[in-house]
Amino acid sequence: MSVIYDRVALIGLGLIAGSMAHAMRRAGLAGEIVGTARSAETRAVAAEINLCDRITETAAEAVAGADLVVLAVPVGAMAAVAAEVAPHLAPGATVTDVGSVKREIIEAVGPHLPDAVHFVPGHPLAGTEHSGPRSGFAELFDNRYTLLTPVEGTDPGATAKLRALWEGCGALVEEMDAEHHDLVLAVTSHTPHLIAYTMVGVADDLRRVTDSEVIKYSAAGFRDFTRIAASDPTMWRDVFLSNKEATLEILGRFTEELFALQRAIRTGDGDHLHDYFTRTRAIRRGIIEAGQDTDAPNFGREPAKKDGPS
Amino acid sequence: MSVIYDRVALIGLGLIAGSMAHAMRRAGLAGEIVGTARSAETRAVAAEINLCDRITETAAEAVAGADLVVLAVPVGAMAAVAAEVAPHLAPGATVTDVGSVKREIIEAVGPHLPDAVHFVPGHPLAGTEHSGPRSGFAELFDNRYTLLTPVEGTDPGATAKLRALWEGCGALVEEMDAEHHDLVLAVTSHTPHLIAYTMVGVADDLRRVTDSEVIKYSAAGFRDFTRIAASDPTMWRDVFLSNKEATLEILGRFTEELFALQRAIRTGDGDHLHDYFTRTRAIRRGIIEAGQDTDAPNFGREPAKKDGPS
Repeated sequence: MSVIYDRVALIGLGLIAGSMAHAMRRAGLAGEIVGTARSAETRAVAAEINLCDRITETAAEAVAGADLVVLAVPVGAMAAVAAEVAPHLAPGATVTDVGSVKREIIEAVGPHLPDAVHFVPGHPLAGTEHSGPRSGFAELFDNRYTLLTPVEGTDPGATAKLRALWEGCGALVEEMDAEHHDLVLAVTSHTPHLIAYTMVGVADDLRRVTDSEVIKYSAAGFRDFTRIAASDPTMWRDVFLSNKEATLEILGRFTEELFALQRAIRTGDGDHLHDYFTRTRAIRRGIIEAGQDTDAPNFGREPAKKDGPS
Repeated sequence: MSVIYDRVALIGLGLIAGSMAHAMRRAGLAGEIVGTARSAETRAVAAEINLCDRITETAAEAVAGADLVVLAVPVGAMAAVAAEVAPHLAPGATVTDVGSVKREIIEAVGPHLPDAVHFVPGHPLAGTEHSGPRSGFAELFDNRYTLLTPVEGTDPGATAKLRALWEGCGALVEEMDAEHHDLVLAVTSHTPHLIAYTMVGVADDLRRVTDSEVIKYSAAGFRDFTRIAASDPTMWRDVFLSNKEATLEILGRFTEELFALQRAIRTGDGDHLHDYFTRTRAIRRGIIEAGQDTDAPNFGREPAKKDGPS
């Protein structure tokens, strides 16, 4: 693999940007990787673990002379960062982002950018429940999809180059328009996260079942929800506020179906329940066949330790 | 470890009974393990993989001379199996079950059993999304809780012996009353399963997002739900029909919270969302500290394969 961008600037040094740094190094895709973060502590950790070739104090310094600028901050912070870096962008540079919503980011970031740069919004569909500069790893994007949502009139060469970078990072890359992206993600990510947060909140809040019981008996299903409900609160607040319409649409559908199942329980309609539960198995098989999840029982979690909790 | 029961009869040879057979052998807890299942195919597979010391065609034959009888069939089939085996139970034998609800099983099974046997209902909180006689493994119960719900007047010696068996299988054992069990499980298992089934059903049913998109982009969160939504449909139909009240109570609380979050999204109340998402992190930490889940990112799923889907 050869160098695709001479200098990549990472604005924000969390899980995604950190994993990009590792993945770009693994394949030698960047001449130099420059990073910055608003928090001095994050910058210090990144420097300590040698996450980038160079760490700058400000985003303006980071983007100077970069031919790729990656905005990797929470959705709600994108506009301010774009405004800050805009005057310092090199002509001909490409600006991209890794935000989980696309229409609102295009509206927030686009107007700040000078005509002489290419803006190619992107979203790697990969992550873990961990966050911060130490959480990144080179394999995060392997065999996972990255979606690019270039707006009309974008230079196809700039899009192709960014695609090559993501493919070099291990990702499968597809293009779609921003509206469709936001609907698809409302289904595959945003609504599932909201539901998981809700379920964990309910369990935490009951008087008749203690937190200690919820924790001890979580292996019966509940613990699966707690992983995504442990994701970064700021990131997710911004996602829901900025993908409001699509999330509310899917939530409406969800509530409708949930009420139908609830009624089936109340009226004892076992056939309805059995049919529904049979149908949902096919999607799991599809996901495993597509290489998007493991077939190992319980996600291949390590077998429980025999010595148990203390 | 020494033999606790001279002859254990397993009625039903799915994931739980199969794992019990492996775990009892690992520790030498049973003199003889006799198994049976209604389906001839299941019995043939069990014989082929040598799951038990002896396979019988009928439940009546299986329980003859057994000092422990384990009912490991779907909740809805418990009463019929109890009626079938009752005349053949050895005096002084213990009967237990592994069903996911307890009050309705006690009401369904109890009246069939002769006075000369001990009935100690139980529920191992362990499982995977796989089912059938090949899905069992000895480590399934290690460091997971098994709940016993003995009814008033049960011989403490019979309960203690069953507890010793479960502990020998690796489990942590606790006792509680059946009503409380059913409420706790509605929170930690039944409602999470129903919600996961619902979310997967919604995704499968949308016109504007294809199944193929749902599958490809599932790593953004959705895939976590598909695992428990791939569980056995018959087992889960029976669980919801027989733990109706507690499930509907928790579902009501869930809907209430979901509507509050939905309103926060609609009105743009970021503080409400952020506070809620921060609070739910603590439960995840508790579960990891209690040894009930792994701290590895993404449940320690194998890193994605670099060669990708074909």
